[in-house]
Amino acid sequence: MKHYGDHVEDLKITYVGGGSRAWAWKFMSDLATMGDVSGSVDLYDIDLQAAKNNAIIGNKFNEAEGANTTWRYRAVETIDEALSGADFVIISILPATFDEMESDVHWPEKYGTYQTVGDTTGPGGIVRAMRTLPMYAYIAEKVREHCPDAWVISYTNPMALCVKQLYDTFPEIKAYGCCHEVFNTQNFLVEVAEDAFGVSGLTRDDIKINPVGVNHYTWFTEAHYKDHDLFPVYKAFCEAHPNGYRSRKQIAANKSFETDYFSSDELVKMTLFLRFGYIAAAGDRHLAEFCPAGWFLQNDERVKEMHFARTPVSYRKKDLEDRLARSAALVSGQEKVRIGETGEEGTRQIRAILGLSDLVTNVNLPNRGQIPNLPLGAVVETNAVFRAGTVTPVLAGPIPETISPMIERVCHEEELIFEGIKERDVNKIFAAFANDPLITCGYEDAKKMFWEMCENTKEYLTMYDLDALK
Amino acid sequence: MKHYGDHVEDLKITYVGGGSRAWAWKFMSDLATMGDVSGSVDLYDIDLQAAKNNAIIGNKFNEAEGANTTWRYRAVETIDEALSGADFVIISILPATFDEMESDVHWPEKYGTYQTVGDTTGPGGIVRAMRTLPMYAYIAEKVREHCPDAWVISYTNPMALCVKQLYDTFPEIKAYGCCHEVFNTQNFLVEVAEDAFGVSGLTRDDIKINPVGVNHYTWFTEAHYKDHDLFPVYKAFCEAHPNGYRSRKQIAANKSFETDYFSSDELVKMTLFLRFGYIAAAGDRHLAEFCPAGWFLQNDERVKEMHFARTPVSYRKKDLEDRLARSAALVSGQEKVRIGETGEEGTRQIRAILGLSDLVTNVNLPNRGQIPNLPLGAVVETNAVFRAGTVTPVLAGPIPETISPMIERVCHEEELIFEGIKERDVNKIFAAFANDPLITCGYEDAKKMFWEMCENTKEYLTMYDLDALK
Amino acid sequence: MKHYGDHVEDLKITYVGGGSRAWAWKFMSDLATMGDVSGSVDLYDIDLQAAKNNAIIGNKFNEAEGANTTWRYRAVETIDEALSGADFVIISILPATFDEMESDVHWPEKYGTYQTVGDTTGPGGIVRAMRTLPMYAYIAEKVREHCPDAWVISYTNPMALCVKQLYDTFPEIKAYGCCHEVFNTQNFLVEVAEDAFGVSGLTRDDIKINPVGVNHYTWFTEAHYKDHDLFPVYKAFCEAHPNGYRSRKQIAANKSFETDYFSSDELVKMTLFLRFGYIAAAGDRHLAEFCPAGWFLQNDERVKEMHFARTPVSYRKKDLEDRLARSAALVSGQEKVRIGETGEEGTRQIRAILGLSDLVTNVNLPNRGQIPNLPLGAVVETNAVFRAGTVTPVLAGPIPETISPMIERVCHEEELIFEGIKERDVNKIFAAFANDPLITCGYEDAKKMFWEMCENTKEYLTMYDLDALK
Amino acid sequence: MKHYGDHVEDLKITYVGGGSRAWAWKFMSDLATMGDVSGSVDLYDIDLQAAKNNAIIGNKFNEAEGANTTWRYRAVETIDEALSGADFVIISILPATFDEMESDVHWPEKYGTYQTVGDTTGPGGIVRAMRTLPMYAYIAEKVREHCPDAWVISYTNPMALCVKQLYDTFPEIKAYGCCHEVFNTQNFLVEVAEDAFGVSGLTRDDIKINPVGVNHYTWFTEAHYKDHDLFPVYKAFCEAHPNGYRSRKQIAANKSFETDYFSSDELVKMTLFLRFGYIAAAGDRHLAEFCPAGWFLQNDERVKEMHFARTPVSYRKKDLEDRLARSAALVSGQEKVRIGETGEEGTRQIRAILGLSDLVTNVNLPNRGQIPNLPLGAVVETNAVFRAGTVTPVLAGPIPETISPMIERVCHEEELIFEGIKERDVNKIFAAFANDPLITCGYEDAKKMFWEMCENTKEYLTMYDLDALK
Repeated sequence: MKHYGDHVEDLKITYVGGGSRAWAWKFMSDLATMGDVSGSVDLYDIDLQAAKNNAIIGNKFNEAEGANTTWRYRAVETIDEALSGADFVIISILPATFDEMESDVHWPEKYGTYQTVGDTTGPGGIVRAMRTLPMYAYIAEKVREHCPDAWVISYTNPMALCVKQLYDTFPEIKAYGCCHEVFNTQNFLVEVAEDAFGVSGLTRDDIKINPVGVNHYTWFTEAHYKDHDLFPVYKAFCEAHPNGYRSRKQIAANKSFETDYFSSDELVKMTLFLRFGYIAAAGDRHLAEFCPAGWFLQNDERVKEMHFARTPVSYRKKDLEDRLARSAALVSGQEKVRIGETGEEGTRQIRAILGLSDLVTNVNLPNRGQIPNLPLGAVVETNAVFRAGTVTPVLAGPIPETISPMIERVCHEEELIFEGIKERDVNKIFAAFANDPLITCGYEDAKKMFWEMCENTKEYLTMYDLDALK
Repeated sequence: MKHYGDHVEDLKITYVGGGSRAWAWKFMSDLATMGDVSGSVDLYDIDLQAAKNNAIIGNKFNEAEGANTTWRYRAVETIDEALSGADFVIISILPATFDEMESDVHWPEKYGTYQTVGDTTGPGGIVRAMRTLPMYAYIAEKVREHCPDAWVISYTNPMALCVKQLYDTFPEIKAYGCCHEVFNTQNFLVEVAEDAFGVSGLTRDDIKINPVGVNHYTWFTEAHYKDHDLFPVYKAFCEAHPNGYRSRKQIAANKSFETDYFSSDELVKMTLFLRFGYIAAAGDRHLAEFCPAGWFLQNDERVKEMHFARTPVSYRKKDLEDRLARSAALVSGQEKVRIGETGEEGTRQIRAILGLSDLVTNVNLPNRGQIPNLPLGAVVETNAVFRAGTVTPVLAGPIPETISPMIERVCHEEELIFEGIKERDVNKIFAAFANDPLITCGYEDAKKMFWEMCENTKEYLTMYDLDALK
Repeated sequence: MKHYGDHVEDLKITYVGGGSRAWAWKFMSDLATMGDVSGSVDLYDIDLQAAKNNAIIGNKFNEAEGANTTWRYRAVETIDEALSGADFVIISILPATFDEMESDVHWPEKYGTYQTVGDTTGPGGIVRAMRTLPMYAYIAEKVREHCPDAWVISYTNPMALCVKQLYDTFPEIKAYGCCHEVFNTQNFLVEVAEDAFGVSGLTRDDIKINPVGVNHYTWFTEAHYKDHDLFPVYKAFCEAHPNGYRSRKQIAANKSFETDYFSSDELVKMTLFLRFGYIAAAGDRHLAEFCPAGWFLQNDERVKEMHFARTPVSYRKKDLEDRLARSAALVSGQEKVRIGETGEEGTRQIRAILGLSDLVTNVNLPNRGQIPNLPLGAVVETNAVFRAGTVTPVLAGPIPETISPMIERVCHEEELIFEGIKERDVNKIFAAFANDPLITCGYEDAKKMFWEMCENTKEYLTMYDLDALK
Repeated sequence: MKHYGDHVEDLKITYVGGGSRAWAWKFMSDLATMGDVSGSVDLYDIDLQAAKNNAIIGNKFNEAEGANTTWRYRAVETIDEALSGADFVIISILPATFDEMESDVHWPEKYGTYQTVGDTTGPGGIVRAMRTLPMYAYIAEKVREHCPDAWVISYTNPMALCVKQLYDTFPEIKAYGCCHEVFNTQNFLVEVAEDAFGVSGLTRDDIKINPVGVNHYTWFTEAHYKDHDLFPVYKAFCEAHPNGYRSRKQIAANKSFETDYFSSDELVKMTLFLRFGYIAAAGDRHLAEFCPAGWFLQNDERVKEMHFARTPVSYRKKDLEDRLARSAALVSGQEKVRIGETGEEGTRQIRAILGLSDLVTNVNLPNRGQIPNLPLGAVVETNAVFRAGTVTPVLAGPIPETISPMIERVCHEEELIFEGIKERDVNKIFAAFANDPLITCGYEDAKKMFWEMCENTKEYLTMYDLDALK
């Protein structure tokens, strides 16, 4: 990298994974408009062909309308070569395949446990963590070996545990986890604020928030528009929409929870606010999974009643096919790459770290006290100040008492899962699994469920002695 | 009080409540053999006649075989008079009547929630707290007014919340909560140790333990007999008794969970040890109530399968009649008072506080750091050193990670209940109630259950605006 | 106040004190160029005539070249009227007169203690605190009464103790302390960075720092220019300037420590860096007062040897006369008010709090964990994020071990002084005084010194029982 | 070791060092009367002949009047053999010789620094630590290798740093530091209590105390005799003895500070109480070294004025000769070994750890929160509960605010010294040295002093690069 004060050249970014994810194209789009930074992007994926396709697509972005800088993309065969000399590393992997995810998400239904996403918490999140963290430990080792000073941005779920793994393997790593769920909640508040104050054209940057919690179960303890406190405004809004709120954004996109597996009418979120007094700040699909099963995920009727949707893995498989087709179209040139608004902020963070601007945004980092009543070392989500080589969390303050019983449980459960995985101790992992509030089937059945879910995905769990389960 | 170095005279003890509790007679028995201390006991109960009867009974203990000191008992009409000049205050009240307790314990069954005791946690414990804490606030005010330097020993459930109330109302109070559940677990370990080491005649004092947690969900993180670590010994014992263990004490008393509502075969406790690696240290009936409903309290079959019993309030009502009859017999002289081994240790604590001996025992106190990973100010159970005017908790250490998700949830829930009650905010109380793991009926039904349980006991809940429940 | 999204009208600012301080004119200059904010400024000073003069001067700024907004200034006779309805309150008072300050600073010389400023720590700072904190308690009471939601910006020394007093008297106050010493150190680093990187035209905003510590003994644990770590650069600079560094700014202003009582060659600062490895970040005059007397303040020769200066109060008296003359000239119009670069940032902070921009800057706030190894509640200096109605400190991290023995001592000493003053307990205050590292005269003489300094200023210490000193 | 429930046989104790210390004979005397424990003692000393002499002396204790158990003593040539299979390890070494100690204690006098003991803090303590901690690291390695489960009792100064080294090298070690200074203060309070209450025959066990602080600068925050608070009693005593108190014990032994280098009239201690309100609890010689030089150690006149004494190393050399002569006499049988009251409590601690009794006593352990406002991991002195395989500190509570500026400085300085020594970084060590309150000579002279003291003892400092000192 060469830093010229007002611009940077020869920056090297390494992208690990993402071969089959449309998300990579968003990142390419954002890079293409990052006027004062240029350089190269090495793509590494266990599916080399996918990486090669992405390299072709990436290079096309240099010529797209609106591009104002240049990035040289190439697919790289080994992670060692990819990481060598990297300034930034993006990690966004799919641990195993959608077949394993299918077991994670849907197998528990046999035991009366209904998950919406199944990649963060609950039975699905726990088993997913079991196969993901060893991969992350491997990546962290490689970062230590090849680019110890690089900044590492992680997008993989389970987010908090993946970031924790990076720090556990390589304590000096400069890593953080980045997730857009909070951004979406800010966008929802944009509509709330526009309605309340009779203004329009606000963006999520106009909504100043103080997030606390763990990824996907993040809450705002403060929210302001200019110097207006949004809490009374939001309260009135929630009370005015007892059956949920169809956002202007949804309507514009012609989406609804009835037709789209990722949409909701924010009813879970608003219900939680009215009960607990703080703004739950992730998609309803994620929030529901951290609550007692009886609240929002008792069964599919309850889900429908709460105006959100469970995302079936069959849909993800179908969607993957669509994306592969689209990839082929982009590679062949049948479809043109297009630069657009992505709603992601990875490139803003990179510019701030390079010292080209300041940024305050939410991020997942090990707790060094930013949330004083969560365990030190657990990965928590709060605002942080990005500037000139540093990412410093703000002192977000303690989890408020009404929500602390839930969040403490979640955070300590994640710590336990992490230790269980680190020690390859299936009984310790099951101690957390059995205590998960989504599981209602009783103790012995929970053990059976856990055993079967491990069996289903055992190809990726060879590092565990599953027979040790008592 | 007059202190003569080796003995104390004119000590004044005030006993609040306990009029209809056999427990008071145990305390009288213990006092009667406290050779180096004598004085007076003022009995105050809202049932004055019960207090009068107890005064008669108490004075008879001076003449009982084995008595080696003298206590003057009298029933007192006002709490003000009772507390005036007290050196020690014992509080052991029944908040309201067994009719209210019947609602606490059994009403939730309509919603699929089965409680064993119902006085500490879960729906029953929460509603009981709502009517008990205002009473405790009143008592604490009176202590501040009449005997601010007295030591206050609290026996009422919910233990942790009652002790917290005392400190909240009168921060300089010298109070602690005392409970025999840990003692019983030590007695169980006596049998374990005797079996393992081929010795006999051990007492619970031979079992040295490090308890941590909250009352009735206390765990031992260490247990020794002499310099032997009891953990491997206990592990072998648990593995050798997969269907539970009928203790010699039970057999001698001709009791079993099938015939006695307070007995168990320790199977819950041993199951928890095998799962989590630490010794759960309360009666199985209490332990089960802090776990997810599916583990031990799914239904009555599961309870039977786990070899313990739920205590119906109908039994408590019947038992009360028996005790009243026995009280009459003791008053009339038809039955003689008898000094015996009670298994309680209030008088040992009093002697230690008076500087007549040293004592290390478990006790419930506000957390000032004795358990570093539980919230400061929450009432926790650990060992403490009693000696010469001081009760100093030991640094018991953090809750171990396998059990921390559960205990953090419990402890933060108690904090939330406390704040909700203090603020008379039924919605805040319900925020905790809805999150309780014993409740499986879903959100709206939980609200209905809470509303009905409040309605059932509303005579004692006049300080709340129940209609504010949203 | 009226907020129109992109601008604010009718903001009310109250300025307490500052009647005779040139500093007020700087603030007026900054306000005049705060294009998107307008309103009124109430001036309150115990010297009403000074306030009246300042009102005249303030109103003239509306017409000055470069002014782009309008502020209505008026002098107000009572603090109650001044604070009524205030949105922001600026406090900048001179506690007592320069006669008292003369005793604070120079009396200790009789006992071999040489102070440079004498308003923050050491004998002078302690006695100054004794008379200042009761005034601050009074102001905080008035804020609570008249404008409890106002933001309060405090500029008075001893900074940390004054801010602590505000929170102690009115815990919900929205107050912070603001000081330009850190800015000056950033300006010094500007020259260091310009030299090292061959650039020019940098401003202090280009130097990104992480300050920790207590006001006037603040240290940077990180410093970056763009993504360059400034620590190795600064190390080389310090080693290259063993006899100090005459800054370009000083040279331009034709100032030096030999001729100006406020200048230095940064030699104390650089010496501390070479010894302790972190960047001491206040003027050398302040830094020296927190160190053992033998290091930099043994005598006047040592001060000269270290290329800094002690500020005699006689100079301050002379300077005051000059300012009064200048005030008269400005009032009469003989001199024109002039808008200029002030180097202060009060108005930037106000804009950020109003939600008109974001700002990260250093500030003095009660420690809620932003510096985990300093006592909670002590006022510490760190960065904070200012935006939209919130000032949130960053998690600055612990004081590094090489400097922690010094800073812990300072911070705990300040806590002790505060408690002693709050309790009006001269012996507790003296317990801190006697332990101050600037005092080398021995125990009994220290008591004599303290007594005399109190006597000298007793007109302002009537709330203490000085005769209680043992 | 064989444990028979009520007694223990074949216990193996290893004694490292102590060859030339009379203290070893005290320990032998105590062992000889430890009726229910017997076994063997391996003596290891770098002076093998001294160890051999002690083995002869030790074995004679088995036949002494009053002996009620048997210990087999032998001198062992290697530390490996000595530690192999040990159940308890006693470490009491003289690091280097009295020649080095002479430099530690007296060289600083050239710079106006007068030390009383010079083995714990100040210039002497720091340089002593530099040569002692590497030895302790070596011993800890050997313990890990040969007897990782053994309990290690450390008596060497600087106590706190030596214990910290043991844990730093071998984190799982079961070690603590034991020191009789607190006992002596209890003995002083015995006389205070006897006078106040008109009783006699009290022992230090009758004085119940809560010590906090770091070794040799320990303070009591509570002290009781029976249920009497000793603080008002002690205050009256201090006020009644403004010129110090000659204890009955001193008078009986015909000792005074004028004739004996270890005696004092407790005037430092009482002065500190009157100033700070808490009971300083070490010998006056130790206490004085932690205070600013001007208080008690300004010069020899001040020492005399305060009725205590500085211990010259010439005396220690002379005393060593006496002890060697006595050793020869004991070996030859010219003098008979004699069992007597030693005032030490190592054997009481051993019995408690073996589960033969319970004990609450003061001890030096790494801070895990027992003193919440001192840094975690620093070695602090508090009470601990000894019983059945465990040593658990009590939650002693925070350092009170009046003394916290001093103790925080001390504790953080010790942390810094420790890190400096661990990193072999003489500049880091000097950062602490320069800040020590006993040093008044100024910065450059302090560096000269440090350099010379290192040079004087460089034979034992070969692991440091002294020339790196800047």
